[in-house]
Amino acid sequence: MKDLLGQVGIIGNGSWGTALAKILTDNGRAIHWWVRNQEAIDHLKDRNHNPHYLTSVRFLPNTILPTNDLPAMLQQCDTVIVAVPSAYAQGVMNEIPPEVWRQKNVISAIKGVLPDTNLLLNDHMTAAYNMPLERYVAITGPCHAEEVAYERLSYLTFSGLNDELTQAVEAAFNNSYINTTSNHDIWGAQFAAVLKNIYAIGAGIAHSLDYGDNFLSVYATNCYREMYGFLQSHFEKVHPSDEQPDFHTSAYLGDLLVTCYSLHSRNRTFGAMIGKGYSVKAATLEMNMVAEGYYAARGMQHISGMYAIPLPMATVIYDILWQGTPAAEGFLKLEKMMS
Amino acid sequence: MKDLLGQVGIIGNGSWGTALAKILTDNGRAIHWWVRNQEAIDHLKDRNHNPHYLTSVRFLPNTILPTNDLPAMLQQCDTVIVAVPSAYAQGVMNEIPPEVWRQKNVISAIKGVLPDTNLLLNDHMTAAYNMPLERYVAITGPCHAEEVAYERLSYLTFSGLNDELTQAVEAAFNNSYINTTSNHDIWGAQFAAVLKNIYAIGAGIAHSLDYGDNFLSVYATNCYREMYGFLQSHFEKVHPSDEQPDFHTSAYLGDLLVTCYSLHSRNRTFGAMIGKGYSVKAATLEMNMVAEGYYAARGMQHISGMYAIPLPMATVIYDILWQGTPAAEGFLKLEKMMS
Repeated sequence: MKDLLGQVGIIGNGSWGTALAKILTDNGRAIHWWVRNQEAIDHLKDRNHNPHYLTSVRFLPNTILPTNDLPAMLQQCDTVIVAVPSAYAQGVMNEIPPEVWRQKNVISAIKGVLPDTNLLLNDHMTAAYNMPLERYVAITGPCHAEEVAYERLSYLTFSGLNDELTQAVEAAFNNSYINTTSNHDIWGAQFAAVLKNIYAIGAGIAHSLDYGDNFLSVYATNCYREMYGFLQSHFEKVHPSDEQPDFHTSAYLGDLLVTCYSLHSRNRTFGAMIGKGYSVKAATLEMNMVAEGYYAARGMQHISGMYAIPLPMATVIYDILWQGTPAAEGFLKLEKMMS
Repeated sequence: MKDLLGQVGIIGNGSWGTALAKILTDNGRAIHWWVRNQEAIDHLKDRNHNPHYLTSVRFLPNTILPTNDLPAMLQQCDTVIVAVPSAYAQGVMNEIPPEVWRQKNVISAIKGVLPDTNLLLNDHMTAAYNMPLERYVAITGPCHAEEVAYERLSYLTFSGLNDELTQAVEAAFNNSYINTTSNHDIWGAQFAAVLKNIYAIGAGIAHSLDYGDNFLSVYATNCYREMYGFLQSHFEKVHPSDEQPDFHTSAYLGDLLVTCYSLHSRNRTFGAMIGKGYSVKAATLEMNMVAEGYYAARGMQHISGMYAIPLPMATVIYDILWQGTPAAEGFLKLEKMMS
């Protein structure tokens, strides 16, 4: 069988990029790996080990080819997995000319909208690079990287319009600790992944405001109802001829749950700090990273307006993060929206 | 305004009965309270305090009237709240003649099917007592009693066919720490409460089998999909002329989440013991109580057959609890059902 994916490269060596590298190399594939930091490259080469993320993972010998030369890597690769935080994705991708991107299979492992354009990666690539959608596949969770490191059974969903490519990507990831499924719902699966980070910040805030388990379950339920309503309306407005996606599956509800409930969730942790009164800046410094949900909250305001589909709960989180609404005041408002 | 509820009595002084007594008495209502154990009655009378459950709660003076004389209490009450474990409900209720029941408003706080008949309480009362459904209201969570004791904001749903009565019950419970909603979906709300206990046993088993957060979120999602499918099919088969219930609300998804995720959940704890290899008998002895989900698993097999609506995931849990299927083997089967 012809290998549809050809040479595979990964952009990004954070915890999610590292987890994806582990899965692919465990499955017998060698990968090119773009890493900005020379010291990390040397460490990866010498020790088959990422010094900064998922440090319990050791790669099989001769499976990773780290480099900081992005154009050279792109030249060698047929398939590129984009796994940088959405805040940096646009900058990195613009280093490569559009005509090069158009010849690649692009697999998005980004969980956010691009902050400059407020677009999903595929919509950005269509708009800016005239990239054919048939070469695009999105990977979504629920899948905290830390549990991939320990090979605890996780489920990934692959969304793409090109069945042959989507199934080839799915097959490359499927193994004893990764169960996989696929669908055609590029937009819904990605919007769910974006929204869930916003709601998870709210879950963290609720925890710090001393709401209990009863409340959190009602909160998560009402977030899901809002997400479901948004996805269904978006689907009906924008892609009514596609097959109806099943939103009662892991890429939608499951990803929301793991992000709201798991202590691995960085967005939840960020929210917990906001709920305790840290400023966004202080929480970001303390975590040494940007929580995806912070920019997602602003991006979804734009997207909600663009499609005229309201997101009242996500808007309260946005108001807390971006408009100075006190967290406790925002939650008094949320309390009344929920049932 | 006429008080539709009249004199209110509670049957049962477990943690849920005690939580409901706290809410009603905090709201200025005096309650009759049937308690089997004389020592507990004396303690309640002398100290306004339940010695066995929710021991942090102290009742307001002159608000509780404990008694172990059930017929005498029924004579004094217009409205009776049934809050005993479903395994004991039938025995207790049969102590009172059907013609007495028919004159009462019956509020069910039971989370299960009656083990002898495999029926919901309302269906049992209709069949055995010819009880008019218009006098029946079901109370559903998500609401762990422990958090009511600490007055942490919780949400209750009241389901009844008689709007006037349902709203009167709802109003009696609404206060600063209890938000309330109501609907007409007696069957769906109660089936959700029954099913969630079965699924929560599975969540506990999964935890003990060392599945992680990623898996649990996929498991809960697939349980919800099964629950949703069951409720929708039951609704369409049995009550198609009613208004479509919204299953994306707290009484359905929320109750499932709190029971699968909260450490207050006794069904989850029971499952964790089963997953560690305890027998059902040993786990029951250790907990000093019957987990509702244990009988619910058997009851729902009957109900699933009766309505011809399959419940493959709940059936795996049933097989583990009642048919000797090893937990790990059952979960290998579940892994493949999920997406």
